[in-house]
Amino acid sequence: MTALSPVVDPGSSGVSGDADLRRRAARVIPGGMYGHLNARLLPPGYPQFYERAEGCRLWDADGREYLDFMCSWGPIIVGHRHPAVEEAARRQAALGDCMNGPTARLVELSERLVHLLPHADWAVFQKNGTDATTTAVTMARAGTRKRKIVLAKGAYHGAVPWCSPSLAGVTAEDRAHLIYFRYNDVESLEAAVREAGDDLAAILVSAFRHDMGQPQELPTAAFARAARALCDRAGAALIVDEVRAGFRLSMQGSWERLGVRPDLSAWSKAIANGYALAAVTGNDAFRQAAQEVYVTGSFWMGGVAMAAALATLDVLENNDAIRHFEETGQRLRDGLARQAARHGLAIRQTGPAQLPSVLFEDDADYAKGAYFAAEAIKHGIYLHHRHNMFLSLAHTVQDIDLALQVTDHACARLAAHL
Amino acid sequence: MTALSPVVDPGSSGVSGDADLRRRAARVIPGGMYGHLNARLLPPGYPQFYERAEGCRLWDADGREYLDFMCSWGPIIVGHRHPAVEEAARRQAALGDCMNGPTARLVELSERLVHLLPHADWAVFQKNGTDATTTAVTMARAGTRKRKIVLAKGAYHGAVPWCSPSLAGVTAEDRAHLIYFRYNDVESLEAAVREAGDDLAAILVSAFRHDMGQPQELPTAAFARAARALCDRAGAALIVDEVRAGFRLSMQGSWERLGVRPDLSAWSKAIANGYALAAVTGNDAFRQAAQEVYVTGSFWMGGVAMAAALATLDVLENNDAIRHFEETGQRLRDGLARQAARHGLAIRQTGPAQLPSVLFEDDADYAKGAYFAAEAIKHGIYLHHRHNMFLSLAHTVQDIDLALQVTDHACARLAAHL
Repeated sequence: MTALSPVVDPGSSGVSGDADLRRRAARVIPGGMYGHLNARLLPPGYPQFYERAEGCRLWDADGREYLDFMCSWGPIIVGHRHPAVEEAARRQAALGDCMNGPTARLVELSERLVHLLPHADWAVFQKNGTDATTTAVTMARAGTRKRKIVLAKGAYHGAVPWCSPSLAGVTAEDRAHLIYFRYNDVESLEAAVREAGDDLAAILVSAFRHDMGQPQELPTAAFARAARALCDRAGAALIVDEVRAGFRLSMQGSWERLGVRPDLSAWSKAIANGYALAAVTGNDAFRQAAQEVYVTGSFWMGGVAMAAALATLDVLENNDAIRHFEETGQRLRDGLARQAARHGLAIRQTGPAQLPSVLFEDDADYAKGAYFAAEAIKHGIYLHHRHNMFLSLAHTVQDIDLALQVTDHACARLAAHL
Repeated sequence: MTALSPVVDPGSSGVSGDADLRRRAARVIPGGMYGHLNARLLPPGYPQFYERAEGCRLWDADGREYLDFMCSWGPIIVGHRHPAVEEAARRQAALGDCMNGPTARLVELSERLVHLLPHADWAVFQKNGTDATTTAVTMARAGTRKRKIVLAKGAYHGAVPWCSPSLAGVTAEDRAHLIYFRYNDVESLEAAVREAGDDLAAILVSAFRHDMGQPQELPTAAFARAARALCDRAGAALIVDEVRAGFRLSMQGSWERLGVRPDLSAWSKAIANGYALAAVTGNDAFRQAAQEVYVTGSFWMGGVAMAAALATLDVLENNDAIRHFEETGQRLRDGLARQAARHGLAIRQTGPAQLPSVLFEDDADYAKGAYFAAEAIKHGIYLHHRHNMFLSLAHTVQDIDLALQVTDHACARLAAHL
């Protein structure tokens, strides 16, 4: 990628791989694409199909290169095709992956998480983030013999009927036992817990507030402690959803710095650097419940993803990853703040610096954000205008500075446009 | 493996990898293991942990070799580490797996399934079999704007609260809209549909009856046609759950030979020879509904599993796989029938020969089956005493005959024991 060199659209020469794939996809995939990776949810100019990836860079089906700030929406945490992770996966694949039972990797990875996470006495593994949140909720109900789940309004905890952001195909009963509070609002949390009465199974809460299109919020210590105290009083489970934040804020669990330990945590995304894996970790209070519920999947014991997870954790620990994410995230944030001020743009950068979020003030329809991102993607910088972004160990200071060259240009264009 | 040569238990010399791993697992995994691969659900003598696999053979953590008839409970359909599948996966992995969007493999695989399956106009992909059944049910509800799901009592459709075989952590509301019938019983199916009244969203039915510990049943043509007619009359979706049967009975969909086409089919297990992948295929009547529901997962667009699926389908088609499964399955069935008769044992072998099921008569607690399987595993033949088994392209006629040597011995031992 050469920053500031606009990419010629191969579509205009009639040989766009992306356009051709979109035409073919429209016939054999409902709507042409589905889920969070649907390019129709992005500003114009974003590709739908990808050819390859390396480190923090992606190449689309037209061969265009991008410096990427989405990291596959979280999974890529040490960089695409990291040699140590790929080597661990290859070694395991040469033995076997999906067999009649687990490999030693299952035990090694459980031991590793129990050692790493102060709250955890055990772990179980799945494939999707939604598997982990659903499993944690089921374990909480099994352990308490109660039903109500108290959770933040607007929080994303997965894409099945009990928690999907869409109501298509969802029945009222799928959400019969959910009660909502406002993130970081202790009074609303207390009110929700009161409403649950003596039927409270769990408080389910994201590691930080990362609702799509909204300012992000780190949890206040008062909020986290209140959640813990309310669960303790009711004998309910405190479940922290680490699917998005996990291993980017802390290697010990995102709430450890607040001095609050969950009973159950749900992990996925970055745990194996893009290999399909999820986990629930829990404490001894919920060990029996975890044993009682029946959760399983055809591929859950695959050794390759577990080997990749062990290698990913090694790389993160050996490279002081959290500090790297904080420093590069802060450098990006500081640079963007200076540029926005210089161009007279009012922006909001919220939440943890290592999961960058850039929203424009007075931008209810995200039109400013979309214009800004569309300018950036033209020059090979892949941002998101509504969702939090992600950094990886592969993002160097030079990459941040390269991106900032382009965002400065995008700021200038947006300022001129407004 | 040398058939008929009992394996020395390395545990007696104090160096068992399996026993050591079980001890470690007991500390960091609730109950030491979970789900369908828990060795406590098997007769004594079965290993819990595996080291490697090749073709139709497995080696456990103690280095013991097994000729395997479970195929990882279905996923392995062309044999472990099949060179063509591994090469396709390696090629894709060298480019990239989990990126900011799909690769061309998504389109190629959707096109392939639409071409292969007469009922299908489109496909969407997930990771777990449970993802596929849950997605199909959600699409049926979205498309019909109705709620009731009619399904067979005792059928396995996954391991989340709406369908799990366990009720731990499950609320009544999770199953509020389920109505049950008896497989292959048209009257009971009609009664269930009547009970749904004008609120019928779908009939959900396994490709054949494969309830754990029960005789298997292929669907009768009358039953399949009744299901189709009832759905047509109500404007409901006929969903065939192909997760277990898929690509073992037919390459065109398991009910195609009955002349009955579902609206939606759920696939997983064998679709990518052990790589984590699932799919829903559907017809145009449900295309809009499929577009409306929000289903997604962090790793669903990974190109490696899709590349593996394309290669797996190639291998199956190029090797007349269905006929291979039928012939080897029938050879095993005929051999077992002869042996049982010779030893005066009454056995029931039911359902399709290519998914072998062996139950003993008058064996309500499966004690005979367990004794038989425990004798077989001592000699390296890995059977299941309650669940249907699976064959792969890697199982040769010689492998079947080798297994039959051991099962003859196991029959003799059981006859002597009784």
